[in-house]
Order: sequence, then structure tokens, then C-alpha cells
Amino acid sequence: MIENKAPGKDISDEDLASKFPLAARRGDEPRRQFEIAGVPFGGDLIPVMAGPNTVENREMILRTAEAVKKAGGHFLRGGAFKPLSFPYRSDKYFELREEGLRYLQDARDATGLPIITEVMDQNYVGAVAEVADILQIGTRNMQNYALLIDCARSGKPCMLKRHYGASLRDWLGAAEYMLLEGCTKLILCERGMAVPHTHRASSRFLLDLQVVPAAQEFCSYPVGTDPSHATFWAPWVKPMTLASIGAGADFIMLEVHPDPRNAAVDPLQPISFDAYDQLMLSMEAVARAVGRTVGRSL
Amino acid sequence: MIENKAPGKDISDEDLASKFPLAARRGDEPRRQFEIAGVPFGGDLIPVMAGPNTVENREMILRTAEAVKKAGGHFLRGGAFKPLSFPYRSDKYFELREEGLRYLQDARDATGLPIITEVMDQNYVGAVAEVADILQIGTRNMQNYALLIDCARSGKPCMLKRHYGASLRDWLGAAEYMLLEGCTKLILCERGMAVPHTHRASSRFLLDLQVVPAAQEFCSYPVGTDPSHATFWAPWVKPMTLASIGAGADFIMLEVHPDPRNAAVDPLQPISFDAYDQLMLSMEAVARAVGRTVGRSL
Amino acid sequence: MIENKAPGKDISDEDLASKFPLAARRGDEPRRQFEIAGVPFGGDLIPVMAGPNTVENREMILRTAEAVKKAGGHFLRGGAFKPLSFPYRSDKYFELREEGLRYLQDARDATGLPIITEVMDQNYVGAVAEVADILQIGTRNMQNYALLIDCARSGKPCMLKRHYGASLRDWLGAAEYMLLEGCTKLILCERGMAVPHTHRASSRFLLDLQVVPAAQEFCSYPVGTDPSHATFWAPWVKPMTLASIGAGADFIMLEVHPDPRNAAVDPLQPISFDAYDQLMLSMEAVARAVGRTVGRSL
Amino acid sequence: MIENKAPGKDISDEDLASKFPLAARRGDEPRRQFEIAGVPFGGDLIPVMAGPNTVENREMILRTAEAVKKAGGHFLRGGAFKPLSFPYRSDKYFELREEGLRYLQDARDATGLPIITEVMDQNYVGAVAEVADILQIGTRNMQNYALLIDCARSGKPCMLKRHYGASLRDWLGAAEYMLLEGCTKLILCERGMAVPHTHRASSRFLLDLQVVPAAQEFCSYPVGTDPSHATFWAPWVKPMTLASIGAGADFIMLEVHPDPRNAAVDPLQPISFDAYDQLMLSMEAVARAVGRTVGRSL
Repeated sequence: MIENKAPGKDISDEDLASKFPLAARRGDEPRRQFEIAGVPFGGDLIPVMAGPNTVENREMILRTAEAVKKAGGHFLRGGAFKPLSFPYRSDKYFELREEGLRYLQDARDATGLPIITEVMDQNYVGAVAEVADILQIGTRNMQNYALLIDCARSGKPCMLKRHYGASLRDWLGAAEYMLLEGCTKLILCERGMAVPHTHRASSRFLLDLQVVPAAQEFCSYPVGTDPSHATFWAPWVKPMTLASIGAGADFIMLEVHPDPRNAAVDPLQPISFDAYDQLMLSMEAVARAVGRTVGRSL
Repeated sequence: MIENKAPGKDISDEDLASKFPLAARRGDEPRRQFEIAGVPFGGDLIPVMAGPNTVENREMILRTAEAVKKAGGHFLRGGAFKPLSFPYRSDKYFELREEGLRYLQDARDATGLPIITEVMDQNYVGAVAEVADILQIGTRNMQNYALLIDCARSGKPCMLKRHYGASLRDWLGAAEYMLLEGCTKLILCERGMAVPHTHRASSRFLLDLQVVPAAQEFCSYPVGTDPSHATFWAPWVKPMTLASIGAGADFIMLEVHPDPRNAAVDPLQPISFDAYDQLMLSMEAVARAVGRTVGRSL
Repeated sequence: MIENKAPGKDISDEDLASKFPLAARRGDEPRRQFEIAGVPFGGDLIPVMAGPNTVENREMILRTAEAVKKAGGHFLRGGAFKPLSFPYRSDKYFELREEGLRYLQDARDATGLPIITEVMDQNYVGAVAEVADILQIGTRNMQNYALLIDCARSGKPCMLKRHYGASLRDWLGAAEYMLLEGCTKLILCERGMAVPHTHRASSRFLLDLQVVPAAQEFCSYPVGTDPSHATFWAPWVKPMTLASIGAGADFIMLEVHPDPRNAAVDPLQPISFDAYDQLMLSMEAVARAVGRTVGRSL
Repeated sequence: MIENKAPGKDISDEDLASKFPLAARRGDEPRRQFEIAGVPFGGDLIPVMAGPNTVENREMILRTAEAVKKAGGHFLRGGAFKPLSFPYRSDKYFELREEGLRYLQDARDATGLPIITEVMDQNYVGAVAEVADILQIGTRNMQNYALLIDCARSGKPCMLKRHYGASLRDWLGAAEYMLLEGCTKLILCERGMAVPHTHRASSRFLLDLQVVPAAQEFCSYPVGTDPSHATFWAPWVKPMTLASIGAGADFIMLEVHPDPRNAAVDPLQPISFDAYDQLMLSMEAVARAVGRTVGRSL
């Protein structure tokens, strides 16, 4: 055992024992495996969650669900509730809210794909939990502990995204709140950090892939990534997705849109159905190279 | 007019016009002034809010209120609800919740000092608003828009702390959510950023004083600082408080405790009653040097 | 063409045209390919540079060179001159300087492996250039323009590491200094950024893999990574190396040591000969999945 | 003594004892005081160094020297050698090099003001040392240890600026290189960090004022700030200068120009002679409020 004497120690044995004992993984303890909507997490399969940033209308979410299913995706993602940094909505930039939830339900009924969608308000946890197979807690609410607790108590599987300014330690602390309240199927998603220097206008965040092996060393729950939100630039989604699989990601979340340039929100980041289909092939090739699969035939 | 060609432009004229028009200040427009509980904000007076991190018991908050009042403070601060990065409480590290709110009420009744205290849960906005003169939204909830909206609708004055990873632009976007919902008395508080390198174990955050003139240039509402939380180290509270006044802070929030070393939470950061009393004198001297006052006689 | 309206634009068309026209890549222009010591860069091959942080003695560098060659590496790396953050050396923590250069020469003579080694002082550019096939400019000297110019004028191929706090724009500006002075074979190496939150004591830096596609979009020269220095933690070297290949890295630099736990410098980060040999197999598998190779048979 | 148990400890007692024993300050040890060119550092006086970014021509540096002297400044600053992030110079954006050194000499002869100017190349240490009273090592060269050693060996007083991405620990390590080589009069200057979010285009860096009390706690040498380079925006220079004095800065460096809008370099950041004269009055008022002086009568 090499004693770790370097400065800046962020996670200590005492943290593992008393700050997040439920989230913690100790030594070579096996990491957790469980199923959500029949899809196994934490094993060889790398589940893929794909869909638009926002549910724009019934037709587009149904078409996207079909494309996702056909290409081999495991979950349909799409926001009915959508946090924006500014309160003003426009014709293009809106939330369908309850109506959007119904369209997600319709997409599931039509394709059988389970649903992951975001919840941002304690008053809507129940409504979202009726439709969603996984409750998504977004970056802005990672430390909204009241919401975390309500989500955990809903009994639904949950995905906790990392805040763009939060340490791994704070992220595991937030996870612990949910585990303590009875969440048994929790997955963690890295979606990009705010860093000193981003690389261009289209790159608002830096996807932190080092946090994947780091979180897996200290935490027993599945850890995945969302390359679309991090890069904010469609051409970089493929390399950062393949990099995520190389880094050991346990699942991948992607933004896919029937007509990316006319997406209601953030049109620089989604990829098209064709690009997604091709990407799934590349993902399968890299997954196999590291002893895993995304479930797609080559 | 000097044209600004530098890279990295964060806040544009279009932002001021359409992203946060209510929060925005344009050109030399005067900045806003208003009273909260009879205390003027945005003028020459620099109101001081002091008290413990956490309301530990009735006696300590009453004693602290008296010390704050005697030294010339304008508001009593103290947490009845207190977010912690990890869910476990101990004998020392707890929340008194509704009981704490009652003690804050008692302290106001005894001293006349108005109260500022944090609200973290949409279900408790009403209860906190009954006692607080200012609702404090903490760093972790800066982008919890559902909470922001509920606080704004309560009709109470609000303080919005900046998230430790948020840009000025995101902060003003969060403020806009509140202004749009009818908050008319909003104050903004810088409390330290997570930065690439902190300086020592006791300095978890970096107090960003440059954001004070920056926020005042772009936003018309009062902008203050909380040096205690940022430095996390009592010996640096004095220099960073005086620096805040030099930078133009419109109010100051400080952590003061009857027995700092035995504080229930974060014992490295509060200052004693005596140190606070001395600091008020130094603050008054610096405030006068920049044409302002903290209302303390020299 | 999607117009990029996002805030924070870091690299503009004007930058490409006038700030670093020699380093710039415009549109779909092909990226540069060239050979160094007979090894092709910028094509399907991903050259691997492996060896110890520091040349500790003649025997260890010879043994390492043999292990690197046997496993299929293309360059031997090792520091004869070694910048440390503090000036004090010890029995274990030293520089062999000219003596180390001779041992590197011996290792090349014995194995035929070309050499990459660091130069830190303008007065030693000539001495290092006599032995090195590639002059390495380390993170601390990325903006030491006098050294950059002297290296470029030596006529040797050069590797420019990114400073741990530098933007892509500043990095390409530093590259331009070298290209302008006649460096024709320049390769760029990401080695980890200082970020707001590191993950543990053993992770001082965050390997920025997003900079790989970003630098490749804006710059025509090969872009690689050094996962060992970034992670500072041997167990994360494998995932971050495979992730680098997934992200499209054009070369990989690794720290390999005959006896990692007794390494003279940074013993937490090098991997053993066996681990390196196994890693080369995994690298080859992932490289093939993305249409490239590290030149190792499976 | 409060035991420090917080995570993220950056500077340990062992660092003070063995990593930078010459730079270190232990406990309540008095901080160092010395004179440079007859100006006392480390005491009640806060020396002010003012002048242009770049020596543009003989006449402008002479006029600036007179204005600086008249307003009460202690040193003339101005770059004869000037690092730029990109290698191309223009009619406006250039270096006068040896010619600039002669003009600085002329300005000293005419006004008696001692000179501080930057050195960036080991080959010019001698030439700069002939003219400069203080050798300035800029942010980009903080870890150019070869240059640091050559400057220290010149026997001249030196100012070491902090790299915009460097920790306090790394900064003190760089200082130790100089002290070990015989530099006896060393001063440290904070000039802004690259941070996750800057506030506007004109603010490329964040002046880290918390590093002032932090560096003073751990290091015995004088610590000052350069608000002009950090803010990159003239309107914020005054608040950040007064904040620096509030934070305890031991000296202040400012950019002053006869015609700011037509400055050859970075025209958004220098202040005019009048603004400088007024600022000196405000600085004196704040300095007196904290028991110090900039030597200007009110």
C-alpha cells in the first residue's frame, strides 16, 4: 500500500466511513448492479439514453423515440420541464410541462422505450414520477437537498447529475442524501465542469472524464456521462462519447434531434438520427475493445 | 466609448436587454435604493448582518443578538435551517428548524434587530417568511428556480447568494427569475468561488471581490459580500471585510459567535464578540475613507 | 453553417488569420503529417512515448528502454533535466543532467529507440538537442518564449506541453512562436489542468480530453496526451489512456518504471513493465475500434 | 491552537520546514522589511509603482515619469521587453527593447524615480539589471526556474508575479529558488487568476485578494497587487486598488498612460494622469484608515 502524501487530499477514509457510507465503495468491494425497467446497469452493458433536449411536440418525440429504438438505444430522454438560465421563454424556447409528460408517455407506449426526464420542482415530483422510469436531477439542483429527498422518497430510480462547479466529494454527499432516504437505484452522471478556459464559444463546459474512474474508485453506484451538454458542439460529441467508453463510463446520455439546426434549444449540440445511428456502431466497436457492449450488432 | 474587442465577452448588451432586463443597469442609470426593516440599502450606509452560522440554542442567539446590536450591526443572521454537504447530523452539528425560527423571533423581540435567515425547502417558505425580514437563498440553491419563485412570491425582501461555481451572468439570470415574480427588494451576496487552487485547508473558497464592481456595473440592485464563509478562516475575515468595503460592497455579512472554538459548525471561521466590535471600528474607518459609513461612531 | 452565438467565444476567425496563421487549421483543410526519427505522426499510427519521469541511473534507463521497445513503444522518454516545484533535491529526488543525457544516448544506442527529453534552460538547448530526437518543453515553460524560440531555432522536432492553467488560445499562440522561428515538426501535448476541484490527493490535475478535438479543429499539428502526469495515480492511467485514444489523440506519452513504488519522483503515477505491456494490448484494441493502431499485434 | 481538519490542505508545516524554509514565515515571526532604492518595503508605507504597460517612445515615458512623481508614486514601471501571447507585432504593438531601457534610464535621470521593468530572456538579464532597480518576472515566467536563478544571481531586487494558474504553494516554491540563489530583496505580486467565469470581456483575470493575507501568513516577504492587469478594465482599477489596501497589500502596481485610449497595448486598462492623481488621494485615505500610508498628503 502506497501512502498518499500528496497535498490537496479531497476524499479521506473518514469521508468514506462517516460522510457517505452508503455511497462509498471500499477497497475492492464489487460495484453495484441492478436493473431499471429491465435494463441492467453496472455490468458489461453500457445503456444508452438518447433523445432531444426538450419535448417540442408530440410528433417529434414519437419520431425520435422510433429512431432511438431502431439504432439500439435503451432509454428515451427528453425534457418536459427544462431549467433555463434566464426566465424568458419564446416561441422556440419553451416548456410543455404536463403536456410534454403525456407525449413522453405516448412515446413509451408506441416504442416500449423507458423514459428518463428531469424534475426541478418539489411540487411536480409526483407528476413526473408517474411517467418517468428514471427521475433526472439536473446540474443546477444537485445541492437542492429538499428535491433530492423528495425524489428519493418517490421510490423511483434516479439519475443525479454533477453540478458544473461541484467536487466529487460534494457530489457523493448529495448522493448520500438520496440513498439515506431509500433510493436504491441511483446512477451518477458527469455533464461537464465550468473551467478556467473553455475552448470555443460552443464549448461552455469541460467533460471531466477523469471523474469516471475517480467516482468508480470511491462509489459503488454506476457512473456515466452526457457528452452533448458538456461539449455544446455536435462535432465533438463523437470523440467525447468514445472517450467516455474508454474511460469506463457505465452509461451514456446523448442528445438526438430530428432536425438539429432547428432544435428549439441549444441547436449546436444535438446530432441527427443518422449521426446517432453511426455513432452507435462506433460505440459498440470501442465498447467491445474494452470488454463491454452497447447492445448493438456490428 | 471604447469598443471592447477582448475575447471571452460574458455579458452583452443583448443580455441586458433581453436576458435580465429587470436586473440590468444600463450606462450611468442610478443604482437602486430601498429600505428593509427601516434600514436603507444602496446608499451611503453599508448595513452589517452578523450572527452565528447556526442557531444552536435560545441563550446563544439572544446573547449574540445583544452583542451584534451593541457593536452597531443592523441585522441578526443565523441559520434555523442549514444545508450541509452530507446528510448526517451529530450532537454538535444539527438544525433546530422551527424551534430555531422561534428563537430568532425571540432575539428580535429582545433587541429589535431584524432577522435574515436561510430557506432551503419550498415547503418551508411560509414558515421562514413569518419570522425573517430577509429570506436568504444560499449558494447551493442559486439555480433552484422553483424555490426562487416561491420566495419572490412571498413578498419578502430576499438575499440571493452566488453559487460558488456560477458566472455573474448566471447569477443575474437567477435574480431575474425573482424580479419577474414580483420581488422588489432584492440584494445579491458574493460568498466565495471554488477555484483551481485554494490557499490552505482553511480556505475552501475564494472571495471574488472583482465581482462587486462588475455586478454593480451591470445590475442595479445592492451587492454585498460574506467574507466569513469564503475565507473559512477567522484571521482572514478582517482583511477581506475591509477589502470588501474598498471594493464598494453595499452590505457585509459576518459570522460572529459567543465561543468560536466551540461553534457547532465550521469553528474555524466565526469571530468573537470582541473581535467583531473591533472590526466594526476598522470598517467604519475604511467606510469613511470611501465616503460611506457602517453607522458606527469612531 | 450554424452561426455560433454562444457567449464566451475563445477562438475567432480573426485569431486563425492573424494570431496563429501558421498553427491554424481552416475548415476541412487536412491535418499535417510528418515523420520524426522514422516514426509517422498525424496519420493512422498513434506513436507511444514511454519511460520514467527521471533518468535515475544508467541501468534503469537501459532496462526501461528494452521493456518499452519489447512492448511496442516508439520513443523512450525520460528526464535528465527535471523541473521541480521546489529547489531542494534529495538522495532520491535529483537530476543527472549531462550524465543523464549520456545514459539516454546509451539507451538509444542499445535499442534503437529515439529519445524525447525535456529542456528547461536556454543554456542547455544545444546539449539536449545533441541527444534528443524530440525536445520536450514542459508545462511550466509553455510561455517562456525565449526558450521556445531557441528550441525552434535548433532545428529539432519539438513537443510543446500545455500549461496547466493555459487556454487553447494561449497554447496555440505559444506554438506560433515556434513555427515562426522555423520549427517544422511540432507536436502538442495535453498533460492536465489545474481545476476547481481535484478528486483526491493523487489527482493533482485534470486531463482535459475535450481539448483534443478542440485543438484538432483549430490547429493542423498532431495533438496527444500524457495521462500519467495528469492523473498522478497509476490506477487511472489505463482508463485515461484508452479515453485519450477514443477522443482522437495523435500520440500518447506514458510513465513506465522498473519499480514504480521506489521511483525517485512521484511514485504514485508510473506503471510497471507488465502493466505497460498489457496496456499496449488494450490500446491496440481501442485504436483499431477507431480505425487507428499503436502498431502492436493483438 | 485550532487544529485544521478541513479537506484540501494546500500548505503544511512540512512545506514550511522543507519546501520553502527561506520564504516561510512561522507563527508570529515578524515579516521582513528592507529598502529598495531608498524606498522602504514591508512597513507602514505602501510603495506605489506606476507607469505604462509598454515604453512606447522617449517622450511618453518621460511625461509619465513626471506625472507619477508629481502624484506621489515611488517607482516608474514600463516594459522595454514585453511578452505577448502571440508573436506578431504591429505598428502599435511592439517592443523597444534596448532602446526602451535607455528611455527608462533617461526617465530616472530626469525624475529620480527608480525603475521596475520586466526581464523575459536569460540573455538579457545583465542588460536589464544595468537599468532596473527591480527586475520584474512576469506571470508567464513564474516557473521558468533558469530565469529565476539568473535574476537572483544578478544581485538585484526582484519582483515575482504569480502565474495566473499557480497555487500559493507553487508561487512560494518559485520564490524559494530565488532566495536560495541569494536574492535578498524579493517582493511578490498578485496579478489575477484565470478563473471559471470572468465577468466580462474586459475582465480576463480575477484579482485574488484572498491570497494577500494567505501569502502574508505563510511567507515573510512583502506581498502586493497589480489591479490593472487583473481587471483589464479601467473603471474597476480604483475599487480593486482600494480593496487591495483593505486586504493588506504591501505595495501597489498600476498602469498609467498619458492617453489611455491610444495606448499601444491593452488600451482598456490604463488610467489617465488625472485619474491616477485622484486615485492616490483615495489610496492615502484608505491606507490611513488601516494604519498605513502611500506617502501622499491629503
